[in-house]
Amino acid sequence: MKFNKVLENVTTYEAGKPIELVVREYGIDPKDIIKLASNENPYGTSPKVAQKIQELSKNMFIYPDDSMFELKESLASKFDVNESNVIIGSGSDQILEFCVHAKCNENSKMLMSKTTFAMYEIYGKQTGCQILKTQDDEHNLEQFSAMYKEHGADIIFLCLPNNPLGECLDKEDVYKFLETVDENTLVVVDGAYQEYASFKDENKKIDAKDLISKFPNAIYLGTFSKAYALGGMRVGYGVANEEIIKTLYKLRAPFNITTLSLAAAIEALKDEEFVQSCIALNFEEMKRYEDYAKQKGFDYIDSYTNFITLKFGDMYSSKEIATQLLKRGVIVRDLTGYGVNAIRITIGSQSQNTKVFSILDEVLEENK
Amino acid sequence: MKFNKVLENVTTYEAGKPIELVVREYGIDPKDIIKLASNENPYGTSPKVAQKIQELSKNMFIYPDDSMFELKESLASKFDVNESNVIIGSGSDQILEFCVHAKCNENSKMLMSKTTFAMYEIYGKQTGCQILKTQDDEHNLEQFSAMYKEHGADIIFLCLPNNPLGECLDKEDVYKFLETVDENTLVVVDGAYQEYASFKDENKKIDAKDLISKFPNAIYLGTFSKAYALGGMRVGYGVANEEIIKTLYKLRAPFNITTLSLAAAIEALKDEEFVQSCIALNFEEMKRYEDYAKQKGFDYIDSYTNFITLKFGDMYSSKEIATQLLKRGVIVRDLTGYGVNAIRITIGSQSQNTKVFSILDEVLEENK
Repeated sequence: MKFNKVLENVTTYEAGKPIELVVREYGIDPKDIIKLASNENPYGTSPKVAQKIQELSKNMFIYPDDSMFELKESLASKFDVNESNVIIGSGSDQILEFCVHAKCNENSKMLMSKTTFAMYEIYGKQTGCQILKTQDDEHNLEQFSAMYKEHGADIIFLCLPNNPLGECLDKEDVYKFLETVDENTLVVVDGAYQEYASFKDENKKIDAKDLISKFPNAIYLGTFSKAYALGGMRVGYGVANEEIIKTLYKLRAPFNITTLSLAAAIEALKDEEFVQSCIALNFEEMKRYEDYAKQKGFDYIDSYTNFITLKFGDMYSSKEIATQLLKRGVIVRDLTGYGVNAIRITIGSQSQNTKVFSILDEVLEENK
Repeated sequence: MKFNKVLENVTTYEAGKPIELVVREYGIDPKDIIKLASNENPYGTSPKVAQKIQELSKNMFIYPDDSMFELKESLASKFDVNESNVIIGSGSDQILEFCVHAKCNENSKMLMSKTTFAMYEIYGKQTGCQILKTQDDEHNLEQFSAMYKEHGADIIFLCLPNNPLGECLDKEDVYKFLETVDENTLVVVDGAYQEYASFKDENKKIDAKDLISKFPNAIYLGTFSKAYALGGMRVGYGVANEEIIKTLYKLRAPFNITTLSLAAAIEALKDEEFVQSCIALNFEEMKRYEDYAKQKGFDYIDSYTNFITLKFGDMYSSKEIATQLLKRGVIVRDLTGYGVNAIRITIGSQSQNTKVFSILDEVLEENK
């Protein structure tokens, strides 16, 4: 059967291996698996969220409230914007999808950093648009500027901080760049890990309201999957000017969020204390990874997220290390596919990290 | 900001009013609201499903198993096909979306019945394709054949049974039509209400495996939102030949189903007894609506679903009746927007229906 030609070039996203798969493939007891591959919050579900889910568990036969009134109100209040500035997606992934499909077609151009979130490119390919990437692995605004000047772009992605590397541009530099961008270019500021970045360094903080007031062509994306510890619930959002939100809504199918996901997100927003404590612990534990890398003599990227990227240079093969960790039940993300000889490890809980260091000791020793 | 031109013609789907909205708009106590507008299963969540959700409520910080191994295995077993013949969507809506975006663009044609599920057309408009509709409100295969012969089509939708009218074509007639359809035309058999149709009349039953074996260009869609009582969880699926499934997968974003939705669907499939008892009750209660319509002297469409369409002819205005029911806390679906002077009422539980008849008595009396 013939399908749309553009689909021939589309590859599918390879998600971090779920625990279930490792159990099946290697016969390891689920209890012994440490999954640090998907940047989940290792401190578990907020008890208030779990409680809410239990309360609603008998209400599954009713469709969700498709107006999403309450969650939109909560987010509008959090960001001090109107509800008409907010759209909710099945993860911020889905808002990315709406943005790309609203702006791009076979005649469009998309600009992004070389090593960044893989879905930008996958969504781009679905539309057949031309994909432009800057040269450095990490975000480099001079390169963004030069490429934008030379080629233009219908949509630009800035991942702040950047997944899968962890670096983060300063707000001031981002704003200077945005001043040079045409009002017809949609700028997507992907803030999936912003809660971590702004905790660590105020200069990295992007305020959604300030951003969209100063740059009406920008959209800020956030997620409940990371700091808010709801990866399993698939809730993200976009904050932008009304004209953009209205257009994205045309691409949203009804009931794109489940009843329990809506309720969980509303509840998670009420438990800011839990979120802040998780972030504080994250950076305490990250220090241990930095020390570990220094001690072992390999490089890492200074991270503004809940993961750290360990660069093995010519010391080890990241693919080999990741495979051997996997066989021992530690799931991390090998970045070979991104063209980088590095592994990305989510910062786990204290006990998880202690175990990781011990297993990593073994693996590194064997690969000397 | 300029967006893709095709979006100018896209309208958004108007979902059945959620209880929350009626509470806000009319100040009615949620307990007193009877929502019969979205064809939900009125017999509640299967206790086994609710139990499972409670068990998993603390596991929300982990991403879902994106391989969906277990649910795909359960569905493959239910339909006696391979897992490679199955794709899971956020409701069968999402599989519809994949089908349309895989086949259609500005040069394509889509063929459907005049009064059928609204999302076919909305997804079609997102691609800018030409939308062809047969003349009668209900599915008429002679008209399908004539239009297909005259115009051709890249994608054809058959809603079996049809939402929002309730009628259902015989399998034998559908197969005869499919024999005349080119192998390059994707035929979508939307079986959202098939469990009801095949319970009522064996001649309406479409067997997914038989369908896709005989017609490799067909895809069968099913949902957990209706008979399986999981409207709030957003899970649907497509069953088709591997080539089609592989292509649709290119349009699927990772983690399109939440952890709890996956678990709920797996559990719901184990509780077939609950589903069958709900369907049996549905048709017992539907008989009361048929008798009510006869008694009041208006027409209805013989329904193979969990709703009934009451046609008011020149006796009443469906818009007026629906509005007055709403003010009294009964949410039904007015079909004026579909060009039909009728209301669609989901068959509720016994006590809900008794209350509906009594309120409807009042409303009809006032509109005489």
